[in-house]
Parts: sequence; C-alpha cells; structure tokens
Amino acid sequence: MSVTDELLANNAAYAEQFSGPLPLPPAKHVAVLACMDARIDVYRVLGLNEGEAHVIRNAGGVVTEDEIRSLAISQRLLGTVEIILIHHTDCGMLTFTDDEFKKAIQDEVGVKPSWAAESFTDLDTDVRQSVARIRNSPYVPVKDSIRGFVFDVATGKLDEVL
Amino acid sequence: MSVTDELLANNAAYAEQFSGPLPLPPAKHVAVLACMDARIDVYRVLGLNEGEAHVIRNAGGVVTEDEIRSLAISQRLLGTVEIILIHHTDCGMLTFTDDEFKKAIQDEVGVKPSWAAESFTDLDTDVRQSVARIRNSPYVPVKDSIRGFVFDVATGKLDEVL
Repeated sequence: MSVTDELLANNAAYAEQFSGPLPLPPAKHVAVLACMDARIDVYRVLGLNEGEAHVIRNAGGVVTEDEIRSLAISQRLLGTVEIILIHHTDCGMLTFTDDEFKKAIQDEVGVKPSWAAESFTDLDTDVRQSVARIRNSPYVPVKDSIRGFVFDVATGKLDEVL
Repeated sequence: MSVTDELLANNAAYAEQFSGPLPLPPAKHVAVLACMDARIDVYRVLGLNEGEAHVIRNAGGVVTEDEIRSLAISQRLLGTVEIILIHHTDCGMLTFTDDEFKKAIQDEVGVKPSWAAESFTDLDTDVRQSVARIRNSPYVPVKDSIRGFVFDVATGKLDEVL
C-alpha cells in the first residue's frame, strides 16, 4: 500500500466526522504565506479553524509571481486584508545555493531551469525581501497589515521580523 | 486588535504544548499540492502529523513554474517520492475568467499582469492539466505516484480524478 492510499484511508475517517459546507470567503479575512516545510501545521500553529484563512505555501515561503497571483485573487475576489508571512528555522532553503542546485539539474537532465530556486542565507533578510516584493506589486491592493515571522521548529513559537 | 494579533495569541498557546524539533525531511516522503481555500485543512483532511509531508498551496492548486520549483526541491533535496494534488468543489477559480480578472486590474491600477490567473471551468480537467504539467517537467524526477483528487467541501471526502 502506498502512502497515498494510507492517507486516503485517513480521509475516509475524516469525512465521517465532517460537518460542512462552510462559505467560500475566508471568515477572518487573512491570507497566510508559509514555507512548505512538513513541520509547520499552519492551522495548529495559528489556531485557525477551517474556513478562516487562505493558506499559500511553497519552498521557503518566498514571494514569486505565483504568490502575487494567489494574493491578488485572495484580496481582490475573496476579501482578505491581512497578510502573514512565515519562514522558519532549520529551513532547507539555507542548505544550498541556486547555482549549485541548477547546475546539478543541468548535469543530470541536460536542461537548466530558467527560474530562480530562491535559496537564501539569512532568514530575517528573506522575510523582509518577501514583504518588500508584496509592497512592490501593483496587483496586491491592501498593504496595511503585512507582517513577517520566523517559526522556531524547536519551540513552536513565531518570532516577528521587524 | 488585528486578526494577526489574535492569531499570535493562539500561537503562544500552541508553543506551550509544543514538542520539537522534528527532522527536516518529510517522514512519509510525500508532497501535497492543494488549493489555498480556507476550508481545506490539509493535515486534518489527510490525517497527517507534523513532519510527515511537504504542503504546497496556491490559488486553485494549479501547477505553474513556482510549484515545479517547490516540487523539484522537495524531491531532489528532501527525498519525497509521491505527489498528491487537491482541487475542490465550490472553488473560487470557477467564478471568473482570466481575461475579466486581468482587465479589472488594468482598469484599476493601469498595469495588466503578464501572468495567467489560472482560472478554470472544469475541476477534473484542471486536475488532469496539473498532473500533465508535472509529467511534462524535466525538473521533477520521480513520477511514479502522481495522483489527483477533488475535495468535496460539503462532505470532506477526496474523490480521485482518473
């Protein structure tokens, strides 16, 4: 049995206890953008219930064109007005450089990605970079509350980057 | 008090009960790519514990360059080998067209996005499109288990798209 099959069995149990449907727009009008790291259970970390916040995630919790797309849809069509960014300690993005990652791919499959891998060397600096990219975008209309945090994987605590 | 402040208070309570740290690589070697929709609590829907799976999310759960980046990092650097895609019923991406979304932005701020908004008209077709984009990428090395699902927001159940 694959892990996917095992998780589908979990879903059957989940559906038995499920009460829905909830409305489409996030009830707390918040969008969270976090790293994809397996240790960050965003709903638990922030005490969110189903239906309360959009949750956007990728490698690093960085802001590229696709996160701007998601935030634009979140704010313009579904009414979110606050943005919470979450990077975290012990992040995989601190363990390599874009150049070496892309060269390894080129060496192996013959094609070098035209995109940035978005690795970084300092957590706080990259959180600030993510905030700056959102502030710099004409497509995200509401910028009154954009706050960035580092999740400590040892303590479970969010520390704000000022 | 902003919603962000309220969620930070929740985090303080979370940290008090927290036991960590867990290892960086996902224990179940799975990457999940799901829509950002507030009603999909991925960990609960799949019965995942912290540390078990990468979770990538965006508007629609679609596959663009940034999801290929995240999946490439997930598989090449952190050892995941299965991919689970999750779209869902009552999705916001079914409620608009790219053309009207981009024209509204152009009319309002004067700049038209150069990116696709990735709206779609049929859930199953878009799940298959997402699978096809991953299969077509040279940067995602392990393609043995890429399975796509539609989460029913009324029942909590995942239905596989074949």
